[in-house]
Amino acid sequence: MNKKAIQKISYGVYIISSKSNGKLNGQIANTVFQITSEPPTVAISINKANLTHDYILKSKVFSVSVLSKSAPMGLIGQFGFKSGRDMDKFQGINYKISNNTGAPIILDNTVSYLDCEVISAQDVVTHTVFIGKIVDCDILSNEEPMSYAYYHEVKGGKSPKTAPTYIHEDKTKEQGKSEKYSCKVCGYVYDPEKGNPDNGIKPGTAFEELPDTWVCPICGAPKGEFEKIS
Amino acid sequence: MNKKAIQKISYGVYIISSKSNGKLNGQIANTVFQITSEPPTVAISINKANLTHDYILKSKVFSVSVLSKSAPMGLIGQFGFKSGRDMDKFQGINYKISNNTGAPIILDNTVSYLDCEVISAQDVVTHTVFIGKIVDCDILSNEEPMSYAYYHEVKGGKSPKTAPTYIHEDKTKEQGKSEKYSCKVCGYVYDPEKGNPDNGIKPGTAFEELPDTWVCPICGAPKGEFEKIS
Repeated sequence: MNKKAIQKISYGVYIISSKSNGKLNGQIANTVFQITSEPPTVAISINKANLTHDYILKSKVFSVSVLSKSAPMGLIGQFGFKSGRDMDKFQGINYKISNNTGAPIILDNTVSYLDCEVISAQDVVTHTVFIGKIVDCDILSNEEPMSYAYYHEVKGGKSPKTAPTYIHEDKTKEQGKSEKYSCKVCGYVYDPEKGNPDNGIKPGTAFEELPDTWVCPICGAPKGEFEKIS
Repeated sequence: MNKKAIQKISYGVYIISSKSNGKLNGQIANTVFQITSEPPTVAISINKANLTHDYILKSKVFSVSVLSKSAPMGLIGQFGFKSGRDMDKFQGINYKISNNTGAPIILDNTVSYLDCEVISAQDVVTHTVFIGKIVDCDILSNEEPMSYAYYHEVKGGKSPKTAPTYIHEDKTKEQGKSEKYSCKVCGYVYDPEKGNPDNGIKPGTAFEELPDTWVCPICGAPKGEFEKIS
């Protein structure tokens, strides 16, 4: 069994949001797919350990914001590598509250959104698969949606440990590429060849040359939280 | 509600296969996603009207063959626009029978495969969402997986009416592009600008210039089954 075979499944990158008792939360997900066209329904898979899971279970509503290719890594970090138990993830985010479900919908870096009411939930060990009836949806921009492959290959993104697609990476395989540094918090790898153009760091910039104010583009950790990959 | 918003979800292109009473069948699907990493499970959504649905329901096994970008339209047509009730879809196909589940696995044009045992099934109106435990999987080629966007944009592919992502297309919108021809059987559109390179037809070839032996690259219908889009 070669588990890399599973990584060949194609995904997009989404923020799935919900509400509970007047609070809002959201998280990055790649597992969204349409189930039926009439009535329009979608399935999502959410880890039981995540706060968004609690909110969806209680409120029976969720929204899907389809991220554009140009969505910055900071947005993905805020929703993907931090917990709503420690912070208000919607602080500083341009969003609206759906008139239908009351779920928040991200307005910036969003190609389209789906606003959904849960019609069934299926327990699958560590995750729940929620089936949502789409009660409203719209297109917000003509940009291309970000694919999960693009996120990994072009943006250098990683999966958090609660993602269905998380695979433990053996860092010893990176020997011989000593210029790369890995974030101890979220696993993001700074690759000097790629730099970090989202934050003004040109390709070809060594880790040592990064300004002291530079932080991990995914989780916001400072330079001191990075370790050389050896 | 702007249903085009739903089309922004990203998918791959897969052949999902199963068996029943010594018979094999398979169909094109775009709805495959990983649910949990430990144990590795995937979800698939299959239309109840399809023969593959009957086979999976009875045998409780299925395989997923992840198609490569270079998979020819004829393969997609054979598995996507024809029914196993009328033909043996595996005739002329290079495949193997899984030692674990007995399901067929396509060997050509396949990047990787997943071999699965059904652990639960959820009824969703027109479709069933099957959750499968991956009992075996492997990579067969280093090619890139075909994305659904690539299938639509580069290959000119269409969705059959039983697909979750099928949207009724209003052909009257195509006015003013009279050179395009549409297949009455499967909806494939011959666009002279794109030609049909898979079958040796160069971009820039008018429909009238196609050889009489040319057939629809998706469903195999002859030229006479095409109508001008007006």
